[in-house]
Amino acid sequence: MKGTVLYGPRDVRFEELPTPEISKSTDAVIRISATCVCGSDLWPYRGLQPIDGPTPMGHEYCGVVEEIGSAVRNIRPGQFVVGSFAASDNTCPHCRYGYQSSCRQREFMLRAQAPLLRVPLADGTLVPTPGMPADDLLPSLLTLSDVMGTGWFAADAANVKPGGTVVVVGDGAVGLLGVLSAKVMGAERIIAMSRHEARQKLAREFGATDIVSGRGEEGISLIMDLTNGIGADSVLECVGTSESMTQAIRATRPGGSVGYVGVPHGVELKGQELFYTHIHLHGGPAPVRRYLPELIRLVCDGEIAPGKVFDLILPLDQVAEGYRAMDERRAIKTLLRP
Amino acid sequence: MKGTVLYGPRDVRFEELPTPEISKSTDAVIRISATCVCGSDLWPYRGLQPIDGPTPMGHEYCGVVEEIGSAVRNIRPGQFVVGSFAASDNTCPHCRYGYQSSCRQREFMLRAQAPLLRVPLADGTLVPTPGMPADDLLPSLLTLSDVMGTGWFAADAANVKPGGTVVVVGDGAVGLLGVLSAKVMGAERIIAMSRHEARQKLAREFGATDIVSGRGEEGISLIMDLTNGIGADSVLECVGTSESMTQAIRATRPGGSVGYVGVPHGVELKGQELFYTHIHLHGGPAPVRRYLPELIRLVCDGEIAPGKVFDLILPLDQVAEGYRAMDERRAIKTLLRP
Repeated sequence: MKGTVLYGPRDVRFEELPTPEISKSTDAVIRISATCVCGSDLWPYRGLQPIDGPTPMGHEYCGVVEEIGSAVRNIRPGQFVVGSFAASDNTCPHCRYGYQSSCRQREFMLRAQAPLLRVPLADGTLVPTPGMPADDLLPSLLTLSDVMGTGWFAADAANVKPGGTVVVVGDGAVGLLGVLSAKVMGAERIIAMSRHEARQKLAREFGATDIVSGRGEEGISLIMDLTNGIGADSVLECVGTSESMTQAIRATRPGGSVGYVGVPHGVELKGQELFYTHIHLHGGPAPVRRYLPELIRLVCDGEIAPGKVFDLILPLDQVAEGYRAMDERRAIKTLLRP
Repeated sequence: MKGTVLYGPRDVRFEELPTPEISKSTDAVIRISATCVCGSDLWPYRGLQPIDGPTPMGHEYCGVVEEIGSAVRNIRPGQFVVGSFAASDNTCPHCRYGYQSSCRQREFMLRAQAPLLRVPLADGTLVPTPGMPADDLLPSLLTLSDVMGTGWFAADAANVKPGGTVVVVGDGAVGLLGVLSAKVMGAERIIAMSRHEARQKLAREFGATDIVSGRGEEGISLIMDLTNGIGADSVLECVGTSESMTQAIRATRPGGSVGYVGVPHGVELKGQELFYTHIHLHGGPAPVRRYLPELIRLVCDGEIAPGKVFDLILPLDQVAEGYRAMDERRAIKTLLRP
């Protein structure tokens, strides 16, 4: 089987890898219907996050169960399934509390940019769709594996409520799907921060009522103008830099909430400053598994179409071009079909 | 009128000050029935927070309205009132959102360790009790002005729920009243961190089910043992040092909440570490005004007796000894009677 391996900065290869097999009785092997490149894959791709030798890539996936281990009870071969980027048993105390991405047996997925994938803890990790989905639903179902679940968690963590005012910092796929999530949750006003025309357009399509293209002081002052000097009830931080976090915190009203899902790189928060902002802060790796049943229903019922974030679709063997297009911001997100 | 002035580290004087008068039409002047020394007064008392020349002290108060400005509508002379340490109009958007301690017109109170006090924004700041309270209720009513309201906010910010497991970091008056608040909110298990016998005893009286006297790694490991390796649902951070904040965060389960009310001194949070803890973080100067009506009812109905934190009662003119006793940890909290 050929799969995707990152060798170093901007060096992605599609090359022979061992074919995945059941190695534990709780595993499943699935045949990937669609996979994709994540914004977070760009950190190591750009050399901003060190890798320890050649690294198989990919953590977003959906597909058909090919084989299951002897202990798997809830999943059957032939089912179409979606799973989280973090495998979880869904039974430990952290899972039952709704934080499957802090599962005691958590394994972050790798190797999903390939035709076949071994999924550990299959019963806890995978959720089957009702029947075999139509082909045009695949992109949307694929997003539930990470970016849509993460945007949804950002909105949930930011306490988005019906009638509320929301700011979304970051116009990558997660930020755009944060806009969509806030819309579904009933936000009245959704201010998307973006300076990129195609992304602004998609943000509006997903429900953004206002676009702010300024950043830093200018961006904050524009948001204050739009909110009568109050700030937003809910702010979704979908980048992970020090600048974006500061932007998010300062756009939030006292008593409001920041949901942060961009993996922080070089972010430090000063306790006393945070104290006087009076904000709620919550985030982390999204517990996508918690949301999968509801999000699968929304996609299958045609209520949401998060798959619109894919503006480049390539055969899997052209994965290197998929990375390049995202790195150069020619594409928001690349879908790969084996 | 004589009042309390801090001149420098450990130099508290009780000396002649101008008698407070109505200076704005929204002011009231109240005759103090009881005031006290706050844990936060010890930061400048110990020289750990610089002061800019001689500084009148005190921000906790209750008493009888003596005089009101021409624009005051809700408060009448002769009423017994309690007010927050932060004056607020209670009408601006931040107040209506429940964050009166971020009021657009906020003024932090000073000069309350005196027989008379000018209270700005009297209509928004002061809450009258139902009738003139019995003398033995005064200590408990006085705590509502800051420490009980702050302990209550810590528990609220930490999302204490019926049946939940709570850890309280800090055994000062706020921490002890955080224990009481968690008990009133229905927590099933309340673990108080304290290594001081008299405080441990009061913590148990207020509802603590377990006492942990270890700190640092040892303290965290004891809490993990007590919670089956899970961590607490809710942790109240009532100190404000880097050590206590780390302790609080590490005692919290993934998805759990830290309510922090100790003014942070030298606290820095690393974004990426915080991200993977999956905690909710909320705190700041307590919006005591939001809770005053409910807490006054609980005190007047005899359901709570937070005044038990006062283990030293002195005439106001012995205020310097009141500070000394707290500084030397001979007293948990000093009440002063003019």
